[in-house]
Amino acid sequence: MGDTTAILLEVFIIFAAAQVGGAFARWIRLPSVVGQIVVGCIVGPSVLGWITPSEPLEVLSEIGVVLLLFAVGLETRLDDVKRVGGSAFAVGVIGVIVPFVGGAFWAHSIGPDWPRSLFVAAAFVATSAGITAAVLKQMGVLRRIESRVILGAAVIDDILAMLLLGVVVAIQAGGSLRVSRLLVVAGEAIGFVLVVCWLGTLMMRRGSKWLERARDPMSPLLIVLILCLGLAWVATRFGLAAIIGAFLAGMIASETRQRMQLEEQMQPLLALMTPFFFVLTGAQVALAELASGEALWLLLVATLLALVTKLIGGWLGALRLGVRSALIVGVGMMPRGEVGIVVAALGLSAGVFGQQLYAVIIAMSLLTSVIAPPFLAMLLKERGPTPEARDQIRPQDRASTGAANK
Amino acid sequence: MGDTTAILLEVFIIFAAAQVGGAFARWIRLPSVVGQIVVGCIVGPSVLGWITPSEPLEVLSEIGVVLLLFAVGLETRLDDVKRVGGSAFAVGVIGVIVPFVGGAFWAHSIGPDWPRSLFVAAAFVATSAGITAAVLKQMGVLRRIESRVILGAAVIDDILAMLLLGVVVAIQAGGSLRVSRLLVVAGEAIGFVLVVCWLGTLMMRRGSKWLERARDPMSPLLIVLILCLGLAWVATRFGLAAIIGAFLAGMIASETRQRMQLEEQMQPLLALMTPFFFVLTGAQVALAELASGEALWLLLVATLLALVTKLIGGWLGALRLGVRSALIVGVGMMPRGEVGIVVAALGLSAGVFGQQLYAVIIAMSLLTSVIAPPFLAMLLKERGPTPEARDQIRPQDRASTGAANK
Repeated sequence: MGDTTAILLEVFIIFAAAQVGGAFARWIRLPSVVGQIVVGCIVGPSVLGWITPSEPLEVLSEIGVVLLLFAVGLETRLDDVKRVGGSAFAVGVIGVIVPFVGGAFWAHSIGPDWPRSLFVAAAFVATSAGITAAVLKQMGVLRRIESRVILGAAVIDDILAMLLLGVVVAIQAGGSLRVSRLLVVAGEAIGFVLVVCWLGTLMMRRGSKWLERARDPMSPLLIVLILCLGLAWVATRFGLAAIIGAFLAGMIASETRQRMQLEEQMQPLLALMTPFFFVLTGAQVALAELASGEALWLLLVATLLALVTKLIGGWLGALRLGVRSALIVGVGMMPRGEVGIVVAALGLSAGVFGQQLYAVIIAMSLLTSVIAPPFLAMLLKERGPTPEARDQIRPQDRASTGAANK
Repeated sequence: MGDTTAILLEVFIIFAAAQVGGAFARWIRLPSVVGQIVVGCIVGPSVLGWITPSEPLEVLSEIGVVLLLFAVGLETRLDDVKRVGGSAFAVGVIGVIVPFVGGAFWAHSIGPDWPRSLFVAAAFVATSAGITAAVLKQMGVLRRIESRVILGAAVIDDILAMLLLGVVVAIQAGGSLRVSRLLVVAGEAIGFVLVVCWLGTLMMRRGSKWLERARDPMSPLLIVLILCLGLAWVATRFGLAAIIGAFLAGMIASETRQRMQLEEQMQPLLALMTPFFFVLTGAQVALAELASGEALWLLLVATLLALVTKLIGGWLGALRLGVRSALIVGVGMMPRGEVGIVVAALGLSAGVFGQQLYAVIIAMSLLTSVIAPPFLAMLLKERGPTPEARDQIRPQDRASTGAANK
């Protein structure tokens, strides 16, 4: 008890600050995640220093984003994602290539040699599904065609980012690049996603009758939470982010008959746990390192580059949905969030770049996460469901969309 | 993300194991907390070694028990506790004196000098409200007169235990015992409880209209969770356990009109978080240190002494409720849980006793937490609500008890 007292204060501060920041953001008509990230920067070490990122807080944050992506998966049907599979694949692939190439040329132009530049470029690649998913969920538009493309692309994006990181680490360390090894890693990750989707969906469609017989109304929730935490961990064993496993677990659970009840029960869990993810994300930024003209200039260029390359990549990939929908997808892919932070931390500990570039990459990741949501919200508000999406909505889905909009 | 992967596996193991242990316990007609504590001992370092208590897990455990006591407070009305104030006070005081005197004589008889014996005796004193509260909540009997006496006594018990620990630490360290300082500490703690109850209840009775106007159905939950986490931390500043603050926050929140909705929304939170508390409690025991005849003998005597002295103390204090009700109160006060563990950890780090006595005290704390619940459940099942309790149940309370029984 004694040593958890200090953490208890930080837990309280994070939770209370998140509510204040979220409410303020909604008041000025911004998505509440933006307020929570900004407030995290304020209570974090850079400004007030009320909280310091530590292992216990990071675990709370990780559980928060795992539950968030599980809940997002719960509102996503595998069949719907399959139907947009081609677009999602194109968005995932082109959305990785354009930022990587752009990031590499920019990094090389400011100094580092090519191997190091490729490493820096890797930080421009991976989309953070958590931020966008939170916005889509809050607006109740998870069933729109653009949302499904974004979520499908996020899975492909994560697989590609993992492979790319493997490549740049090998190149930077001067090791020989073993293509066969990379193919095995890629095969394992893709196999994991496919097997989980296929087996899980099959089992849940048959098993949900069995779940119904449980007398305790909490039992289905407990069983799917075991699935969620289990797959989150297994995903990390296959080199993927934990949130990908949680998202797949949510998609599996969405095949059960208890889906509506589960969505309802997830609400309090998200209310308690997701603030830790968003506030901690904001708390990572080191403002002191950015307090020079040179650093600010680097940050400005890096952020613009990150936003524009991902926008172009996502837009090109989703063009077959129409120009406007492709724009929504492009903006939805812009946040880098925690993935850029992980690459930056790797780069710092491997000595690939110094404190300043590290701070710039982290701040860039956060800025993309703060800038994208308002644009995404604006674009989504401007138009109702697209005709093709409306045609595809089945009666039970309409009910679910209505509930999410409440 | 990288370094939280290992913890993610432990989080999964704890959560899954808790469900298996809880289901097994219910199957053999024991309260599920018993199964969760035992399974914690099995997956913990002593047997399988699948999980190792660490700071992140302890924080999850602390948040779990804080939420549990908040939910218990939510089902407790301040007025009902006030009505049994005399009995609760007597149970708290006598329930501290008898185990302390008994523990001191026993400790002195096995070797340590008097100052050290008093320190050991302090581990016999404090009741762990978490275990008993979980059993009472699971059985849906939180509104029975015995439950209210136990919960009121737990608050008084915690204040006395804190003071006693201050005294024995001072005596053991050879410092002079400053009565004036102790009176200030006691005054602060009592003042905190009274002010929180009075001000909080007043504010919530007026404020719940204002809560009703919030459009988001999650808003009242968010506000009371801020209160819960805040008071949990403030309680630790007054030397009390965090769970006392959380319990008071729950009692305050129970005065709002959103009480039923809040109880409903707390269910998923408890389902996710409380397993960490019970499994971690079980994981603390060091079986290896107990693998000798001498240690087992010590453990047997210590456990019997802890059970009997608390039973007598609680029984004497609650005698005015009738012999049977007093028995229920006595059994309800028996678990020592995490409080005994804290005293033992203090004693070990202060060099007051060695590894063996440390392991014995921890195992004793856990054994009381495993032994008491089945007896409590048995005693509570044997009879319906007492006549006096039935008279006091108002219509809205009856509905709430029914919901809890579902």
